[in-house]
Amino acid sequence: MSYQAPVNDIRFVLNELAGLSEVAALPGYEDANPELVDAILEEAAKLAQDVVAPLNSVGDRHGNRLDNGTVTTAPGFKEAYRQFCENGWIGLRVPTEHGGQGMPALVAMATEEMWCAANVAFSLCPLLTLGAIEALDHHASPEMKALYLPRMASGEWPGTMNLTEPQAGSDLAQVRTRAVPVGDGSYKISGQKIFITWGEHDMADNIVHLVLARLPDAPAGVKGISLFVVPKFLVDTEGRLGQRNDVRCVSLEHKLGIHGSPTCVMSYGDEGGAIGYLVGEPNRGLAYMFTMMNHARLGVGVEGMAISERAYQQAVSYARDRVQSRELGSDDPAPAPIIRHPDVRRMLMTMRAQIEAQRALTYYTGAALDRAACHPDRAEQQRWQAVVNFLIPVVKGWNTEQVNEVTSLGVQIHGGMGFIEETGAAQHLRDARITAIYEGTTGIQAMDLVGRKTASEQGATAYALLGEAEATAAKLEAAGYPEMAAPLHRAIADAKACVKFIVESFNDNPKAVAAGSVPFLKIMGLVLGGWQMGRAVLVAKQKLHEVDADQSFLQAKLITARFFAQHLLPQVSGLAEAVLQGSDSVLALDEAAF
Amino acid sequence: MSYQAPVNDIRFVLNELAGLSEVAALPGYEDANPELVDAILEEAAKLAQDVVAPLNSVGDRHGNRLDNGTVTTAPGFKEAYRQFCENGWIGLRVPTEHGGQGMPALVAMATEEMWCAANVAFSLCPLLTLGAIEALDHHASPEMKALYLPRMASGEWPGTMNLTEPQAGSDLAQVRTRAVPVGDGSYKISGQKIFITWGEHDMADNIVHLVLARLPDAPAGVKGISLFVVPKFLVDTEGRLGQRNDVRCVSLEHKLGIHGSPTCVMSYGDEGGAIGYLVGEPNRGLAYMFTMMNHARLGVGVEGMAISERAYQQAVSYARDRVQSRELGSDDPAPAPIIRHPDVRRMLMTMRAQIEAQRALTYYTGAALDRAACHPDRAEQQRWQAVVNFLIPVVKGWNTEQVNEVTSLGVQIHGGMGFIEETGAAQHLRDARITAIYEGTTGIQAMDLVGRKTASEQGATAYALLGEAEATAAKLEAAGYPEMAAPLHRAIADAKACVKFIVESFNDNPKAVAAGSVPFLKIMGLVLGGWQMGRAVLVAKQKLHEVDADQSFLQAKLITARFFAQHLLPQVSGLAEAVLQGSDSVLALDEAAF
Repeated sequence: MSYQAPVNDIRFVLNELAGLSEVAALPGYEDANPELVDAILEEAAKLAQDVVAPLNSVGDRHGNRLDNGTVTTAPGFKEAYRQFCENGWIGLRVPTEHGGQGMPALVAMATEEMWCAANVAFSLCPLLTLGAIEALDHHASPEMKALYLPRMASGEWPGTMNLTEPQAGSDLAQVRTRAVPVGDGSYKISGQKIFITWGEHDMADNIVHLVLARLPDAPAGVKGISLFVVPKFLVDTEGRLGQRNDVRCVSLEHKLGIHGSPTCVMSYGDEGGAIGYLVGEPNRGLAYMFTMMNHARLGVGVEGMAISERAYQQAVSYARDRVQSRELGSDDPAPAPIIRHPDVRRMLMTMRAQIEAQRALTYYTGAALDRAACHPDRAEQQRWQAVVNFLIPVVKGWNTEQVNEVTSLGVQIHGGMGFIEETGAAQHLRDARITAIYEGTTGIQAMDLVGRKTASEQGATAYALLGEAEATAAKLEAAGYPEMAAPLHRAIADAKACVKFIVESFNDNPKAVAAGSVPFLKIMGLVLGGWQMGRAVLVAKQKLHEVDADQSFLQAKLITARFFAQHLLPQVSGLAEAVLQGSDSVLALDEAAF
Repeated sequence: MSYQAPVNDIRFVLNELAGLSEVAALPGYEDANPELVDAILEEAAKLAQDVVAPLNSVGDRHGNRLDNGTVTTAPGFKEAYRQFCENGWIGLRVPTEHGGQGMPALVAMATEEMWCAANVAFSLCPLLTLGAIEALDHHASPEMKALYLPRMASGEWPGTMNLTEPQAGSDLAQVRTRAVPVGDGSYKISGQKIFITWGEHDMADNIVHLVLARLPDAPAGVKGISLFVVPKFLVDTEGRLGQRNDVRCVSLEHKLGIHGSPTCVMSYGDEGGAIGYLVGEPNRGLAYMFTMMNHARLGVGVEGMAISERAYQQAVSYARDRVQSRELGSDDPAPAPIIRHPDVRRMLMTMRAQIEAQRALTYYTGAALDRAACHPDRAEQQRWQAVVNFLIPVVKGWNTEQVNEVTSLGVQIHGGMGFIEETGAAQHLRDARITAIYEGTTGIQAMDLVGRKTASEQGATAYALLGEAEATAAKLEAAGYPEMAAPLHRAIADAKACVKFIVESFNDNPKAVAAGSVPFLKIMGLVLGGWQMGRAVLVAKQKLHEVDADQSFLQAKLITARFFAQHLLPQVSGLAEAVLQGSDSVLALDEAAF
């Protein structure tokens, strides 16, 4: 099933909801003019649709093969990656001084949505490279940056992130990989890392591994972890490749989904130690990793939303084509396309409404990231940084929890065919399932949200965002949309009650707050998504009166927002009851009684 | 990961909630005394745990192989099936005159839960055989019954159901397979059937296909479909196997899950016509199929609940073993088993509470089936039949929708390991996904529920069941459980409002009702599941005072019911809003705008 990049929807969100023109007015982003952005969207759409998307099922079927430490990717991946790099896509949001194009995160996000929707397994290689670039850009020495960053930004040397070890999943305090100084400024790294995405492959000449490890005298726990660069092939100061480093892929995981992406067990130092180079100062590795956490988590939020879009497109196409059973209440006894059956419509609308709300909130967060990074006014920078910090766990958690539901609805719409792998609907369900797990599970996002992002600032940002949502609800009311305003108002009131509970209870009873943290995260996703849908309604109402208005497009925005208000926002009251009343029953059962 | 049959929970539901002693008092079920039932549970548990469950992952990994029309099952399946048959498990609820043991459906259900939880792919072979037995028992001639039923009840000749064709999925009016009379009383069958579970395999000497086909002069649509028996090997009147019939498996589907079960494309009559025998009268095939629909749909509801149980057990085991991150609010800095983390508990409780409610409602329905079949009082029979008719789509739809969530939570609890196939958590998610599709999708169950089961009887049974739930809520209040009574009362009120809306609107505006039919189905699952949880609380409170009470077991019932009331029942209000307010927004979008 082919993919059509939803360029109109993306443009609407960029321009009308995320504030692209304001972002483009920030110092440093002056090049992001409407013409260039349009050209970027059109070119990215073409590459995504014509080159990357057709490889999605190929990657799923073929997976990757490991022979003697060498990973062979699925047919076509290598060529697509070459074209992807030649067109300069990896460096789109990398600063120009490192060979990138210096575009805002917001603009890059639009292209990243397309790569993820087209082929999420493929998209992980550039995504992880960008994460590695960001970490090095912030913390590496000028020499290290000059050596590595341009080659990474071009895609010549993709990057990887080596954090997880068997005993250290979410809890990096347990990292054991060791780094011993050699004496010449380099280190010998030894240890095993698991779940290393694109840890080894044949798409590039070299791979730049970023590795968390402990120095011999490092303190225990998270304060004793340092960050190292470990290239697959050693390089000289001119970037010429030298000998193979002592790091290899010892096995590939057999996964539920994203088969096109090799998930490697990486062994460092089997033959005495892999040569690594310290990034920044010793024992600051975890802090450095956090630098890129926001981008990485937002990136996974994009994945969730993008896979949902892909599943939606496939489901719509099937629902139009598949003819089965007569239309309810129709005089025509002939079987009808199933898109006419109300429950199929309900499923499609459930998918569609969540995707639109998620896209709006995700791009809003992307724009906030740019404003936080570049706003000339320091107070505005800080304000936007707080917004970013609050929204990241919401976007990451909500988009990725919901993609499980959305892709499952995609399967359901296909009926029995949805269960057959060749149909492709099941692949989206399988691929999506990792997104709520990696880069911090939903539980971890939710703890971040209730703790650092809500309780520790007395709910300031939460209340501020809910206040903006309230203003939108009031405007909806005034604009003649009480059927949307009322559910939004009610949901906001519930959300505020939850924020109050969290702020008041977190210090004395953190377990009670934690017990409702994921329901709270979903509440914030729904309410803030509903806020964005309300904003879209106000824009659409305005634009409907313009001479060249796309009536069908704008009417669809109104209807989809109404569905969101009447079918999805009402879930908030039940979730709020779980947050406010439900912690005892979460915690009461004796551990042995499970 | 091993499976432990939850015999204590099953016994509690059988005895305290489903009314086993009353069922055993019905004429014909006198043998179902407590000692025999206990022995059945213990023996079934042993076989499920020791023989059937270990093959679950084997079947998933190996799948089935098709060579020249012959299907080879995964290693161990053939031997397990032989043992299963030798122990007489298929015939447990088959009438004694056909070689079965004549147990109530309720007792058989307890064993069926175990087979499904142990290995759902394996369990489908006996399940479909039972469906075929039931259809023949009701509609075949005495000679046909005498020839086939004892051999099917013993498992010597398992049965299959051949309904679906490529153009006729949910809509059997489109069936095209043809049956031409030969002149000797037999027919030549030709056509292609798809999605035939266990359509061909090497576990038995013969296979009895039940096939829907059209006679030459048959009217169009569902009134022109007849039912035929088509054995894989022709048999003489003594049951001796003769020549191979003209039916073969031409391909196996490559599926998301239940890999252990061969899903076949069956071709009839490639060499002139497969010999088939008409069951009952011509053109009554669909009505005959409906005879076994209730059992089959209830059976799939059992599958959903059983796979949830299996996923829960695996998640609990992992959550106890996996040590990661310190306990919140604890002074101990050492990492703790993740079962101590509140969000992991919330997920486990969400799984557990739904499983308990589903088991109770499912077994209640099984008992109702027995009462409807055997109650000596005709009015009581009719009353119970109405209960069965109402509850079947609820149990089928709700259990199977929720197993998607429950198995997904099972994956989530495993973190990154959940995405690795060897862990086994992902298999449950994949296996479960078909249950909301086959034997009628959730959308079809929901239409059945709002139409034939609610609107057409002015909500009589719905109101009666909600009335019983109300009485339970009142008792909970009186017994000192207002925190459970209040959410149940509120949910019942919402459910009643929905029933009223459905009854009033169905004739004039069936699309509006259909748009909210699945949310309504979920409401009934939650409310009636909550009713059963309330009944369990009242029993547990009583039993806690008994001398030899299992305090831990009974306290767990109270806590789990409280969780259900505080976390799951509150979802009803949002769903009710979708039913009552949401139909316009489901239907409003122009078909071309999707």
